[in-house]
Amino acid sequence: MTKQAVIIVAGGQGTRMGSLVPKQFLLLRNKPVLMHTIEAFYNYNNQITIVLTLPANQLDYWKDLCNSYHFDIPHTTVKGGETRFHSVKQGLEAVAADTELIAVHDGVRPFPSAEAIARCFDTAATFGAVIPVIPVVETVRQITSSNSVTIDRENLRLVQTPQVFDGKILKEAYNQEYISSFTDDASVVEAAGHSIVLVEGNRENIKITNPTDLIVAEAFIGE
Amino acid sequence: MTKQAVIIVAGGQGTRMGSLVPKQFLLLRNKPVLMHTIEAFYNYNNQITIVLTLPANQLDYWKDLCNSYHFDIPHTTVKGGETRFHSVKQGLEAVAADTELIAVHDGVRPFPSAEAIARCFDTAATFGAVIPVIPVVETVRQITSSNSVTIDRENLRLVQTPQVFDGKILKEAYNQEYISSFTDDASVVEAAGHSIVLVEGNRENIKITNPTDLIVAEAFIGE
Repeated sequence: MTKQAVIIVAGGQGTRMGSLVPKQFLLLRNKPVLMHTIEAFYNYNNQITIVLTLPANQLDYWKDLCNSYHFDIPHTTVKGGETRFHSVKQGLEAVAADTELIAVHDGVRPFPSAEAIARCFDTAATFGAVIPVIPVVETVRQITSSNSVTIDRENLRLVQTPQVFDGKILKEAYNQEYISSFTDDASVVEAAGHSIVLVEGNRENIKITNPTDLIVAEAFIGE
Repeated sequence: MTKQAVIIVAGGQGTRMGSLVPKQFLLLRNKPVLMHTIEAFYNYNNQITIVLTLPANQLDYWKDLCNSYHFDIPHTTVKGGETRFHSVKQGLEAVAADTELIAVHDGVRPFPSAEAIARCFDTAATFGAVIPVIPVVETVRQITSSNSVTIDRENLRLVQTPQVFDGKILKEAYNQEYISSFTDDASVVEAAGHSIVLVEGNRENIKITNPTDLIVAEAFIGE
């Protein structure tokens, strides 16, 4: 197998969940979300290098959580930066130079399927830059200056993570100056001149951003 | 209160769910999805006129289901048409001419909140054409002829139902010839020259279109 790494980015401070606990630490089936996320990658490949970025003020808390939960999946913890971009950049410093494929994944997405992760890595080995996407089932409107218009959802895809890249391509891309239109890693790599290949994600791979999502996540765990 | 009606459109034949049972009849907490949907509107306003459109080959089955489940919320059942547009048109025939506000709702959305339904009706009383929407939390890509590009999700909204309209406006709009770009009722009313007002929907108001959605729906019921 190629030498692989994943940078798991957790930056939440918990305000949007209406709780004081950052969402990456909320309990899912009595275990912090972030531990489920890390397990998903370990279950996919137990040789993968796992780098976790966390806000500076959460590093000690995470260490305590790992002790309390006897969480022993090997991973390196890194202090995140001001934005997601800066956190990934910090994470990349902790990835060995000879790593062939590097994934970047949202800490609050605990359910990427092993199949979807494999699709991303396998395709990235050939094409260098891959993101998992799912179709949109709802009608979509775009708000314009005066009104709003329906846009054709057949051509839209919702973008998930892990976004997987050739190691050299990703590191080079993150040497660019930060601009606010970098919403995900694909946008960073694209700005560096690379094309992005889309593969099928998995619908359970939700991003936990509000209390409703936590109810959904509990249901997925139960399955 | 204004005189209100809702046309609940159920047209599914069940193929996408990988089952022989049309999705509107799948069991949620031991009761067909469609009964939950009807209850949501009855709980919002027990005087509302409820019209249900179903494929011709499901009318008898629905009657049997209502008997089996002792389902006694008053509603009129109408044979649907070839497309969603034609089903709504059929449903409108069963709505009294003096109905001031008419909602159209997807049968496979069992969880519109009473608050969201009220927001749609209340706003429609003033503005004539209202749809509930929610923000998009994921990065969105639009597939182009050669590649795909990220589009600004801040300006995108996912469109739900009930879509609520002034009765006269809706009936007039449905007198238009059908065109395939009529993806929802708002697009029909817009084509007739009316502006659409967006109000906040509720995140639980999912459309049950695949087996994953049913797991999510069971979780919402449990709450």
